[in-house]
Amino acid sequence: MLYAVIMAGGSGTRLWPESRASRPKQLLCLEGTRSLLQATVDRLGNLVPPDRVLIATTRELAAAIQDQLSHLPRGAILAEPCPRNTAPCIGLAAIRIRRDDPEGTMLVLPADQIVAEAETFREAVRAAAALVDEDPRRLVTFGVRPGYPATGFGYIERGEPLGSAAASGAAAGVFRVRKFHEKPGPEKAQQYVASGSHYWNSGMFLWRAGTILDCLARYQPSVHAGLERIAGAAGSARFAEVLTREFDAMPRISIDYAVMEKAGEVVVVEAPFPWDDVGSWLALERHRPRDEDGNVLDAPRHLAINAQGTIVRSNDPHQVIVVAGVRDVVVVVTPDAILVADKHDERSMAAVTGELKKRGWEEYL
Amino acid sequence: MLYAVIMAGGSGTRLWPESRASRPKQLLCLEGTRSLLQATVDRLGNLVPPDRVLIATTRELAAAIQDQLSHLPRGAILAEPCPRNTAPCIGLAAIRIRRDDPEGTMLVLPADQIVAEAETFREAVRAAAALVDEDPRRLVTFGVRPGYPATGFGYIERGEPLGSAAASGAAAGVFRVRKFHEKPGPEKAQQYVASGSHYWNSGMFLWRAGTILDCLARYQPSVHAGLERIAGAAGSARFAEVLTREFDAMPRISIDYAVMEKAGEVVVVEAPFPWDDVGSWLALERHRPRDEDGNVLDAPRHLAINAQGTIVRSNDPHQVIVVAGVRDVVVVVTPDAILVADKHDERSMAAVTGELKKRGWEEYL
Repeated sequence: MLYAVIMAGGSGTRLWPESRASRPKQLLCLEGTRSLLQATVDRLGNLVPPDRVLIATTRELAAAIQDQLSHLPRGAILAEPCPRNTAPCIGLAAIRIRRDDPEGTMLVLPADQIVAEAETFREAVRAAAALVDEDPRRLVTFGVRPGYPATGFGYIERGEPLGSAAASGAAAGVFRVRKFHEKPGPEKAQQYVASGSHYWNSGMFLWRAGTILDCLARYQPSVHAGLERIAGAAGSARFAEVLTREFDAMPRISIDYAVMEKAGEVVVVEAPFPWDDVGSWLALERHRPRDEDGNVLDAPRHLAINAQGTIVRSNDPHQVIVVAGVRDVVVVVTPDAILVADKHDERSMAAVTGELKKRGWEEYL
Repeated sequence: MLYAVIMAGGSGTRLWPESRASRPKQLLCLEGTRSLLQATVDRLGNLVPPDRVLIATTRELAAAIQDQLSHLPRGAILAEPCPRNTAPCIGLAAIRIRRDDPEGTMLVLPADQIVAEAETFREAVRAAAALVDEDPRRLVTFGVRPGYPATGFGYIERGEPLGSAAASGAAAGVFRVRKFHEKPGPEKAQQYVASGSHYWNSGMFLWRAGTILDCLARYQPSVHAGLERIAGAAGSARFAEVLTREFDAMPRISIDYAVMEKAGEVVVVEAPFPWDDVGSWLALERHRPRDEDGNVLDAPRHLAINAQGTIVRSNDPHQVIVVAGVRDVVVVVTPDAILVADKHDERSMAAVTGELKKRGWEEYL
């Protein structure tokens, strides 16, 4: 059976000041009236029923997430005691699924991305599931055709096409993975895009719970041993204590580094759906209407005078926001913090939370 | 005796969103903890005692002005029934002064300018008063050496130096006025600045109350007749009614157009003090400290990251304002309105209030 594991523990700071430690990116509504997390669950449609959806997150965010996903059973939320990156997170979800269904297949999805064309997305997931049904040792990744030489994503270099029955049934291509590449510099990124054989690593995966646990046993034995001790305590009074102790002892390690870069049976399904990781406020331009001067005016009361390419964002129904004579500026207003930035200067925007911390202004984080 | 008449009826919209119809520029604190109006009164020092200071303003602003100038007697505020520009305003003050002191001299000052070096200012006023004592028919203007080819001011073209005893006592020059010029286009403004013989018209004047009334009688007989009817009703129960009726019937006309451009005995005292009409937010740069990147950060909580030449202005002690990667942007934050503008684009900033009006958003005006 197919399970969905949605990773919603991120504390993304790129969308500050709307994103905060207590309300990270995945909880924000960027497209419409549903948060990125809610939209990620919605997108599953009838592919995975609510009782097979798991949300992996931190203890701090569990309550806010339960609020947003009140239709899911309480047990759907896996609250990690501390952040340990994706490998321990996925491992924890895998032991939970294995307990319910030793043959269970898990679709792993980040909670903070925008994916359009839900039906195309589900088609791609079905194709991936067929690949795993055909050979349960397979690890499936989803590769996004790079739209520009991004330096903020890892890349997946594809090898030869997979000549299997399941692969030929997939709408887009399926390939063996030649190599995973970490986030490149600008020059390398150019080369990757020019090659035609490199995808952005979407961070979405599909595999059997048992298979990923076998891989962890092989490549990360100490992580695996910790997970098995947690699994052994499941259902007992000691569970919370064991989970906390074992998780605390685990290294912070991504699934890419822990397993994907080392494993053999890795394939990549080309993601034929529009995908956006919402890395900065610039993403609003791709998902909100623009006026004839290219301004995205996502605020109840706004006025643009001789302004071009601006992005204005606020929720206050009474405060008017006026942009005049400016170009390519992003203005984000919240009750206790305002950002005015060059929309293309992601480096400066990314530096904001660090600078606030330096000044001891933790209340804005 | 010397009286001061401070014209504080302006509804300047250039400093929106801080300046509003109910709190125009002259009531704002731009330099320190005193409003422009308060600073204008302070600047008089011992030149004019409080009981010879008159504040001309509108009925709407009278209460707010009394609040800011609580040390002045109630009668110090001359509330005009309706705005009629400077000629009727000055005429009204003149009949009031003439009643108390038929030989009274009046110093006329706009309330919304920044003048530095108060003692130098007072010296210039004393020099002007001496010129009027020497010849009571004189109308004295104060000319500011142009710092750049401004198109927002009228200009005063000087003639030959005044060879009088009083003039030779003045610290800076005193000249006959050859001609008043209205706000020029950019090319004309260049010529004026290059000539070395043109001053900015500061809008400050000094003359005998009787003399300016004589001039009004000669050049604007209908305005003068109205003023005399108001003067005739002074102290009677009919006064308010007569004032309203007569003021209402007067044309909107500036003292420059009504008298100065036509009169003969006009002299200009070169203003040797730093003068700023605070025409836009750009003025903050001239009166507030800048950081090493040229940012003026006039807000309780602010952070500039890779930002240059920005102007940030807010009073909220809890809200942090972050500028990141931007240049030459002005950010002004008030509880119900925010302006983000190119600090050099005065035209776009000046268009804001008109656009708000068009949309029916009167609450922000």
